[in-house]
Amino acid sequence: MSYFPEVSKIEFEGPESKNPLAFKHYNPDEVIEGQSMKELLRFAVCWWHTFRGTGGDPFGPGTAERPWEDGTDSLDMAKKRVEVGFEFIEKLGAPYYCWHDRDVAPEGANLKETNANFDAIAKLLKEHQDKTGIKCLWGTANLFSNPRFMHGAATSCNADVFAYAAAQVKKAIEVTHELGGENYVFWGGREGYQNLYNTDMGRELDQLAKFMHLAHEHAKSIGFDGQFLFEPKPKEPTKHQYDFDAAACLNFIGRNGLDGIVKLNIETNHATLAGHEMMHELEYARLHDALGSIDANTGDLLLGWDTDQFPTDIYLTTQIMLVILKQGGLGSGGTNFDAKVRRESFEPVDLFHAHIGGMDAFARGTKIAAAIRKDGVLKDFVKDRYNSYDTGIGAKIESGEVGFKELEQYMLDKGEADKNKSGRQEMLENVVNWYL
Amino acid sequence: MSYFPEVSKIEFEGPESKNPLAFKHYNPDEVIEGQSMKELLRFAVCWWHTFRGTGGDPFGPGTAERPWEDGTDSLDMAKKRVEVGFEFIEKLGAPYYCWHDRDVAPEGANLKETNANFDAIAKLLKEHQDKTGIKCLWGTANLFSNPRFMHGAATSCNADVFAYAAAQVKKAIEVTHELGGENYVFWGGREGYQNLYNTDMGRELDQLAKFMHLAHEHAKSIGFDGQFLFEPKPKEPTKHQYDFDAAACLNFIGRNGLDGIVKLNIETNHATLAGHEMMHELEYARLHDALGSIDANTGDLLLGWDTDQFPTDIYLTTQIMLVILKQGGLGSGGTNFDAKVRRESFEPVDLFHAHIGGMDAFARGTKIAAAIRKDGVLKDFVKDRYNSYDTGIGAKIESGEVGFKELEQYMLDKGEADKNKSGRQEMLENVVNWYL
Amino acid sequence: MSYFPEVSKIEFEGPESKNPLAFKHYNPDEVIEGQSMKELLRFAVCWWHTFRGTGGDPFGPGTAERPWEDGTDSLDMAKKRVEVGFEFIEKLGAPYYCWHDRDVAPEGANLKETNANFDAIAKLLKEHQDKTGIKCLWGTANLFSNPRFMHGAATSCNADVFAYAAAQVKKAIEVTHELGGENYVFWGGREGYQNLYNTDMGRELDQLAKFMHLAHEHAKSIGFDGQFLFEPKPKEPTKHQYDFDAAACLNFIGRNGLDGIVKLNIETNHATLAGHEMMHELEYARLHDALGSIDANTGDLLLGWDTDQFPTDIYLTTQIMLVILKQGGLGSGGTNFDAKVRRESFEPVDLFHAHIGGMDAFARGTKIAAAIRKDGVLKDFVKDRYNSYDTGIGAKIESGEVGFKELEQYMLDKGEADKNKSGRQEMLENVVNWYL
Amino acid sequence: MSYFPEVSKIEFEGPESKNPLAFKHYNPDEVIEGQSMKELLRFAVCWWHTFRGTGGDPFGPGTAERPWEDGTDSLDMAKKRVEVGFEFIEKLGAPYYCWHDRDVAPEGANLKETNANFDAIAKLLKEHQDKTGIKCLWGTANLFSNPRFMHGAATSCNADVFAYAAAQVKKAIEVTHELGGENYVFWGGREGYQNLYNTDMGRELDQLAKFMHLAHEHAKSIGFDGQFLFEPKPKEPTKHQYDFDAAACLNFIGRNGLDGIVKLNIETNHATLAGHEMMHELEYARLHDALGSIDANTGDLLLGWDTDQFPTDIYLTTQIMLVILKQGGLGSGGTNFDAKVRRESFEPVDLFHAHIGGMDAFARGTKIAAAIRKDGVLKDFVKDRYNSYDTGIGAKIESGEVGFKELEQYMLDKGEADKNKSGRQEMLENVVNWYL
Repeated sequence: MSYFPEVSKIEFEGPESKNPLAFKHYNPDEVIEGQSMKELLRFAVCWWHTFRGTGGDPFGPGTAERPWEDGTDSLDMAKKRVEVGFEFIEKLGAPYYCWHDRDVAPEGANLKETNANFDAIAKLLKEHQDKTGIKCLWGTANLFSNPRFMHGAATSCNADVFAYAAAQVKKAIEVTHELGGENYVFWGGREGYQNLYNTDMGRELDQLAKFMHLAHEHAKSIGFDGQFLFEPKPKEPTKHQYDFDAAACLNFIGRNGLDGIVKLNIETNHATLAGHEMMHELEYARLHDALGSIDANTGDLLLGWDTDQFPTDIYLTTQIMLVILKQGGLGSGGTNFDAKVRRESFEPVDLFHAHIGGMDAFARGTKIAAAIRKDGVLKDFVKDRYNSYDTGIGAKIESGEVGFKELEQYMLDKGEADKNKSGRQEMLENVVNWYL
Repeated sequence: MSYFPEVSKIEFEGPESKNPLAFKHYNPDEVIEGQSMKELLRFAVCWWHTFRGTGGDPFGPGTAERPWEDGTDSLDMAKKRVEVGFEFIEKLGAPYYCWHDRDVAPEGANLKETNANFDAIAKLLKEHQDKTGIKCLWGTANLFSNPRFMHGAATSCNADVFAYAAAQVKKAIEVTHELGGENYVFWGGREGYQNLYNTDMGRELDQLAKFMHLAHEHAKSIGFDGQFLFEPKPKEPTKHQYDFDAAACLNFIGRNGLDGIVKLNIETNHATLAGHEMMHELEYARLHDALGSIDANTGDLLLGWDTDQFPTDIYLTTQIMLVILKQGGLGSGGTNFDAKVRRESFEPVDLFHAHIGGMDAFARGTKIAAAIRKDGVLKDFVKDRYNSYDTGIGAKIESGEVGFKELEQYMLDKGEADKNKSGRQEMLENVVNWYL
Repeated sequence: MSYFPEVSKIEFEGPESKNPLAFKHYNPDEVIEGQSMKELLRFAVCWWHTFRGTGGDPFGPGTAERPWEDGTDSLDMAKKRVEVGFEFIEKLGAPYYCWHDRDVAPEGANLKETNANFDAIAKLLKEHQDKTGIKCLWGTANLFSNPRFMHGAATSCNADVFAYAAAQVKKAIEVTHELGGENYVFWGGREGYQNLYNTDMGRELDQLAKFMHLAHEHAKSIGFDGQFLFEPKPKEPTKHQYDFDAAACLNFIGRNGLDGIVKLNIETNHATLAGHEMMHELEYARLHDALGSIDANTGDLLLGWDTDQFPTDIYLTTQIMLVILKQGGLGSGGTNFDAKVRRESFEPVDLFHAHIGGMDAFARGTKIAAAIRKDGVLKDFVKDRYNSYDTGIGAKIESGEVGFKELEQYMLDKGEADKNKSGRQEMLENVVNWYL
Repeated sequence: MSYFPEVSKIEFEGPESKNPLAFKHYNPDEVIEGQSMKELLRFAVCWWHTFRGTGGDPFGPGTAERPWEDGTDSLDMAKKRVEVGFEFIEKLGAPYYCWHDRDVAPEGANLKETNANFDAIAKLLKEHQDKTGIKCLWGTANLFSNPRFMHGAATSCNADVFAYAAAQVKKAIEVTHELGGENYVFWGGREGYQNLYNTDMGRELDQLAKFMHLAHEHAKSIGFDGQFLFEPKPKEPTKHQYDFDAAACLNFIGRNGLDGIVKLNIETNHATLAGHEMMHELEYARLHDALGSIDANTGDLLLGWDTDQFPTDIYLTTQIMLVILKQGGLGSGGTNFDAKVRRESFEPVDLFHAHIGGMDAFARGTKIAAAIRKDGVLKDFVKDRYNSYDTGIGAKIESGEVGFKELEQYMLDKGEADKNKSGRQEMLENVVNWYL
């Protein structure tokens, strides 16, 4: 039987097509800088928004029509959702999927039962992976929904909750390993605080670091060598999250001996909520050798919460791909659509529209970024802009030959610095437009 | 002669006074937690806003009436401003002042002449310091106003500008040293970017680190052992500053071998522009042993630019002092009013109203914070809130006795975590109000 | 039986009390400017947050412990909640409560059944009102939670939804009338849009105006002469709400013949999300003779969503009361706590802490505002500041005696305007602090 | 002689051109929906940013290299700038320009002298207009830069300042009239407040209304029948401007008898600072028959001040043109580039790059919007979405045949509303991308 009978496999039809249920730009086999788009972009469908999202918001419950749903969180329903999910992903043509433990399998009456549920579903997921060739990009644990996590998980003031989270992540890493997942993600939904009057920030940060080390030790002990990823987000649901942005995460990673162990999973909507452009966060992570994977979505810059919209802005995807192509792709990471259809887009077919739009936007951004790179229009400009460091006093500064004394003498002799060059921001924005 | 003939020395008159030109709460000799308010708060007047501010904004030139000003940037005018400044600070009763090199002394036709101007003024400042007992809290260099710094200073794409900045900071450190300054501050007005298309972020960050190391080496070579301070600010004038917030600065410091060399100077308005409460930034810096000094001001949270208003909110000053008292004061740092009178508050007397309000707000916040601390109402709550880590599984987690395996087994046996305690945010907010 | 056995009636104990379950400032009988605090403030408890709030957020379900709840939306449970609610309000000592139709009574299988449920509850509410003396400040209809309202209610693109909303509001007005409610509120939870590509804004605004007129006509037909109130909010749940702020609402009201029919219910958190201070919205509404009632809460200015926190900031309540005292109170309106306890404040007693804090903050703001008004320190300053309009050319401008020609001649003769006076913002902020 | 010797007339070269100093999309003679692009877009160069902008910002003075400038505000320099300006506009091929009185002519020692300066320049402008065919789109008066306007102009607490502003606007309208200007703009740079403690908002709003009526009466008396335009902006330089957004302006206009007299000049950066999309403000103004003209620029949505960047985002220009084409153009209004080159883009040629980019972005947006309109993809969707109002109960609602009673009966009979249709936001965003 089919859960999406009205939709066939989504095919590439080219830019002239007016078929909304076709790709205009995403051609998985097209080669860009030596990699096929499929290999380069490594699209993933996320289980939580796409198969568990209901369209609820703080002002009303779900609206989504999902004819296969019985509205329960039973194990049977979880099994049926595996059928639904794999049909969707296969028709869409995405090579990967991602999950939180509690999206795919229901909690039981106690931890043991919960783990048994998870095992049952993991077995089914594995079967479907094998049958379809769809792979697990990454797994993660939901450590924020259950009321026990109200004060955080690894950073909870309740030691039992730390223990519970540890048990849960242990299992989630094991299942990721079984499913051949290529990464494991930490998203600390409530690892932060609501209020400083009642919070011991120092103790909480120490616990978070300890937690990650324990996770890494366990991974090693079972032979899981996927990449660990930490996902920055500044706020929501907490007032202030410890993983505020790439800089806060990297400060935490660096100061807690986690360099080389944990990289970043960067999300557009989280970047902008923190006051950064996505391109900034990506480049900043790349420079720290920590750009591991991306959550592909977008926010509404006039709204102050995580709208998790599907990305359709070509400027955004071009900027993202300029950075990703610069580092030759995302390695074991990928492009995970952590995005949800609007509450008013409640029909199953809207899930297809949304993903097609996102995939096409990324494909288009990839082609534009590759063309810009091929012509070298930005790279050459930048190289030329900094060329005063390639010779003369600049080269001496870079090589460490001169100190403040020599530099002062140099400038006392010279009196004034050489003239600056125009930054040409407007011209460069125009040039990027040429490639759209 | 007097530049402020209408104002006598500002005295403490107590909370019942209705004299706007008197302190109601700031009593320099009152002892709080073993230190006099004077020693604890270490108030400083900043030269730039208070003696060089004109009230100009992007939509109009200055409005400030300063009868002593001839409107020029001459050396004579600079000398007269020293008279003005010291009269003001002495009447106000602030023990410290702070400066940028270019606030106190004018640029000359070339670097040599500029340095000579600076020397002449430094001599005069020293004389006034000696005469009045007013001290230099910190000095810094203005590396952002002159057009040569349009692309940054240490992070400029123009190597000559790096050299010029080096020469300028060398001199500024030397003058700070001569004046007995207790700290030296880096505020990177244009150390950031306007646009990523034309920017090599990696090269710029490397240059900034090199610059700080060269500064530190020079300081050592001349025997200056004041504290170096880095001041976070997320944006303005650049679109994105590398010193975005405490976390970004500490990541930079830690990864570039600057721990123990550079601490932070935290400003309220910069904290909130970055999306953080001032209390957060202070506590985060304190936890990293990096809370060096503060810029006392406030922003308007409904406006998106640096309004640099004088702080008058008692909640803000109470929260600041809760952290500062926790670390036993600011050490060599102080409370610098990096704040300016509104463009419409254009009379000299407004400078007094503004500083009196700020000093009284801090004095009041100090007394409230000390009372809260004395009763232990927040500390005891927090201690109790985390007490599950003091024994049992929590203690084992903290001591490193248990790993994921043991924690899983613990929780499998237990089935579910112990019940959480209420966070009591509302009650704690009420309790803080009791002390106002 | 008692639902809050651990809490007795909350009493006024004065500022020195350290009992968290007592009022320190709210003394209902204390007379301020000729009215008792009880009459002046007219506090109301809201049914939705206080008795239906669960502590759910977009990242997790409810946490609230409410021992009386069975977790269903049955009629029996609704009846029990009436017992709970009136015990709470009576112990708290608030004279009023407010409701949405769907908070107090469950939806049935169809509209008829729904109305029957509502009637059954209304009867019970009336009995409790009569027994306790607690009164209904206002009623309103929930036109946003049920999925049928996904595209709005009066502004839905689905005419049936308009009809449904009309039926629902008809009933809600009738019940408000039966319960002696003094106002009826329109809060258009989804009266706005998510996206302009699919929206006919003109048609939607016309429908909204028509809806209000039909509501007014029905109210007249049944003899309900309570005040209609329109509540501004800029966004959330929709991307853009038509009732963005006081100005947008008043433009709508004025241009659709609703002046004199509809006033405003102003909420702090909505004001700040729109970029306005609460005091601005209140004063702006007051000037348009449209300040009808307030929703007393606060947002977190560093967060971009409606946090609906209880108001504890004395500056905020002082500013609010400066405006309300200026208009001699709120008439038939009141001070409704549209606020919710934090998700982590999950115990019943937290509901008391929260309301006590809010009531005390308002009581304190009232006393401070009254003292400022008594001394005339702000009023006198303002009067003096504008006194150039009381005589001479200013008086001629105000009386309409002069046009551009005369004004030009006046200024050609004079050459330049008289000197301005300092705005003294810093001094005024200090003066307000004297009264805290 | 030439002031821009390195630039020839900018010509249309088509999308394949790689010449940065050519148009790729703006072909003035190309006909779109019956009008040439030139007639439809009516591009204007603004005098203030383009010929008076220096690149100064709050942290440093100007950087702009303008070889023709002597740095003074003399009448001779003003005359030379007319030469410069007309050469630039002619080479660029823009048909219009706009000015503030103080951009084009310097203030003198008193109002009389100031007016004489203005007359001298107006004569010269007229000559250049006649010679080149370039026309004046609109004039306005700068009522915010001079310190006399510190407390506002029409809303100043100083009656003399009102009088001065009246004299100045009188003259500015007269000069606009002489130059054949097609509109006159009110931008109330300081018509707002910094602080509510010292402000009488009611008196200020009344004065502002009086001022506009006096302006209109004077215009009639001299036969000027150009359109008056009011320009919304929420904040900066004041904390709160009375012309906050389109809704606030229209509420002011409607309630002060200015409908039909004053329309709006909508600016992108002001729209977004107020929390609105530009498309929202345009459509809202259009619905009120008040969309008069636009200021074409863009802000940076991650920054909280008016960056006034040149618009290069094709999504933005497409959305703008969807509304403008819907109303058949802007009538006497136009597309004024109220935008400035970045401080780092300091060479004269950057002025060309900036305007070319903006004009091309608008040309492209125009063609995309026209294509979308031609295919009807959005219009048809919207028409269909609201079709329940075209017949049945919806038609009865619109015609006023039914009231709450009838609607309740209708719904009691029906039980539940008809099913909603999906909003299809994701699909529509994809469809718009097809046209890029």
